[in-house]
Amino acid sequence: MNSMSYSDSLSKTLDSLGITEGTRLTVERDGRTYTGTLMPHHEFSAPDVLILKMKSGYNVGVRITPDTNIQVLDKPVEGSRKEEEVEFRKGLPKLVLIGTGGTIASYVDYRTGAVHPALSTSDMINAVPEIREIANIDATVLFSIFSENMNVENWQKLAQEVADQLNNGADGVIIPHGTDTMGYTAAALSFMLGDVSKPVVLVGAQRSSDRPSSDASSNLMACARFCTKADRAGVYVVMHDTSGDDSFAVHVGSRVRKMHTSRRDAFHSINAVPIAHLDDKGKMEVFSDGPKVTGDKVIAKVDMERSCALLQYYPGMDPQLFEDVFMRCKGIVISGSGLGHVNENMIPLIKRACDNGTVVVMTSQCLNGRTNLNVYNTGRDILSAGAITVLDMLPETAYVKLMWVLANTSSVDEAKEMMKTPLAGEMSDRRTIDV
Amino acid sequence: MNSMSYSDSLSKTLDSLGITEGTRLTVERDGRTYTGTLMPHHEFSAPDVLILKMKSGYNVGVRITPDTNIQVLDKPVEGSRKEEEVEFRKGLPKLVLIGTGGTIASYVDYRTGAVHPALSTSDMINAVPEIREIANIDATVLFSIFSENMNVENWQKLAQEVADQLNNGADGVIIPHGTDTMGYTAAALSFMLGDVSKPVVLVGAQRSSDRPSSDASSNLMACARFCTKADRAGVYVVMHDTSGDDSFAVHVGSRVRKMHTSRRDAFHSINAVPIAHLDDKGKMEVFSDGPKVTGDKVIAKVDMERSCALLQYYPGMDPQLFEDVFMRCKGIVISGSGLGHVNENMIPLIKRACDNGTVVVMTSQCLNGRTNLNVYNTGRDILSAGAITVLDMLPETAYVKLMWVLANTSSVDEAKEMMKTPLAGEMSDRRTIDV
Repeated sequence: MNSMSYSDSLSKTLDSLGITEGTRLTVERDGRTYTGTLMPHHEFSAPDVLILKMKSGYNVGVRITPDTNIQVLDKPVEGSRKEEEVEFRKGLPKLVLIGTGGTIASYVDYRTGAVHPALSTSDMINAVPEIREIANIDATVLFSIFSENMNVENWQKLAQEVADQLNNGADGVIIPHGTDTMGYTAAALSFMLGDVSKPVVLVGAQRSSDRPSSDASSNLMACARFCTKADRAGVYVVMHDTSGDDSFAVHVGSRVRKMHTSRRDAFHSINAVPIAHLDDKGKMEVFSDGPKVTGDKVIAKVDMERSCALLQYYPGMDPQLFEDVFMRCKGIVISGSGLGHVNENMIPLIKRACDNGTVVVMTSQCLNGRTNLNVYNTGRDILSAGAITVLDMLPETAYVKLMWVLANTSSVDEAKEMMKTPLAGEMSDRRTIDV
Repeated sequence: MNSMSYSDSLSKTLDSLGITEGTRLTVERDGRTYTGTLMPHHEFSAPDVLILKMKSGYNVGVRITPDTNIQVLDKPVEGSRKEEEVEFRKGLPKLVLIGTGGTIASYVDYRTGAVHPALSTSDMINAVPEIREIANIDATVLFSIFSENMNVENWQKLAQEVADQLNNGADGVIIPHGTDTMGYTAAALSFMLGDVSKPVVLVGAQRSSDRPSSDASSNLMACARFCTKADRAGVYVVMHDTSGDDSFAVHVGSRVRKMHTSRRDAFHSINAVPIAHLDDKGKMEVFSDGPKVTGDKVIAKVDMERSCALLQYYPGMDPQLFEDVFMRCKGIVISGSGLGHVNENMIPLIKRACDNGTVVVMTSQCLNGRTNLNVYNTGRDILSAGAITVLDMLPETAYVKLMWVLANTSSVDEAKEMMKTPLAGEMSDRRTIDV
């Protein structure tokens, strides 16, 4: 789960001393002695650095060279971390955590000093004890994968699991997820779960290892507060909205994109504003109206047409090179330039694909703003070729929606109509916009 | 040049009355009478709206229905817009405008009421008379195309023309350009012109038709001020940096991206800050050091390897579908997830391409931040497959650079080394970063 990336020589040293995560160590270097418990190697640490959690609770990174003296104090005791029985507290709502992997899952371990990659109920509650005050928490591990390896089957299993949990008494679901593809998964759940009657919140962690405070824990606490207090149903992403520790944004799941490789406020609502904001003291502001929580049964419609592709247009794009993509796929989303354009030499290929029954959807690589193919000749030629456009929908969301729409319709015309109609907050309503 | 998009019925009406742009009209509608000169149809106007420039200088849009009464007052006089001789003013620097097309070119006409799509010297100076105070301006039209149709040959011709103009006495070059692909062209010129000894500035226009003030003119004036006063050589993009009229940012040409489909402050420096800021009164702040203007000869190295592609990774990407791209291209840039990742099922294809001598470059679809393939297993597997990463370079810039590098090197190893080395401000210097 956690990314191990020690150098070869340091790995050998650790192996020879029998050192694993959770081992208590003393490291002497440059005349200083560091004593603490070995933490999982963190993504932002160099391959020759050990991270020790010291008695103070703070972590320290120590660079290991051939002359560094390492001594083992205590090995982690096998089986010492047995599940604690967590008391069920009557009157509190029930939230279910569905673990999928990613930094956030390893991070919970990191806070508690545990080596296990998977979340467990007691891990969770140990890491965020305040959460007990507001909800009963169950946790289950569905996958333990890097989010870049999340695929369509994972989305399908996850949506079904969310529906099952909500139909079996959960008042909300929190999904710790790797941040790489969390936006895509959020979009997939948005369409698969449709008008879900309760809150479903994805959450990740992006923190750097040199801070003792936990963004995983604080993000999770914000999720729990939102799920229990906002009275909002739907699929959302909760992440930090500043580089600080005390501010969280709730994004609509079909409108959010990872916009930074590593900052903790990497996730931004695009062409929309976050629907709520929380601080670390429990204060919550909900900015807009939206579906309220009900007791309705949740139905997961998980079918997806896999034969879809997402392409970015670029100058010099050779239509011949993409012949296979255009002629073999049933759905293609192009993130075009500006208002949704491609070079005119791409248009015959788009036309052939459309004539072939493929749905071709134009979006904009600008990400912000909305497409409009009625403005320039190129755009009108793209429309004439049979492509459609989808206002201010993100290219990534359009790709996910297209897979879902094509699996849930029988005719190309109906599919196009559904693509142009807001189904899960993913686009502005064409009828309300001056076209 | 300008995008004509009247409805069929309105086009017929205009034809039958012999109305062309520049015609003076009276339009009666809903009991009101509008008198003015017919402007080119603007991109943001509906197909049944005429734009009239009134005596006040303001424009008005009038919706035309079958019962609207249109009367012709004056037809535009053919040939009345002959070139004015512009006085050469000794002691002022010489700037050359190289027209390529786009909204900005039609916009200059729009301000002056001219119908001609192409810039001419007198058009230019009529539109921005203040520019005469600071420079002698020459103008030439190299292309008149929508920027989504700009291709590699256009970049090559443009770079050569810039070099020729600078070597023939120009102190700076201003390139009005469509905004759709201006970032790509700026990147191409950045590499082709290398250590160009004078300022080369691309500029566009994004304005909506309902404002009488001209962002084309104000952008051009900011360009001229920057070119004549900043003492900075290099390739830059100048655009509005707020939604107002009075604030302009100068972006490094290899670091800039169109981030909104229509806002006038659509262009953002990514992983960098603008190098200068100007206001509409001529105040200029230059924020950082950089190459100064010299008299060195400018050499354009315009060779490009066309067999390159830019791909965005997405969950569900089917490696088989992209077999052709990977096996036929000499260079591939992938905008991966997060730190530069793809699903593990893509890695064998990346390896086959690399084994085949293809250069595969990982960037991040987050756009902001920097890639790092040493953190997670997936990243290390991608490196082992033979791909490289390029820190904080934009995917679009990496694609353009790869075309240039592959045409200017003979070995794959050298090409990879050049990709990892900053050549035109396009990336942070690896040596200055804690990897």
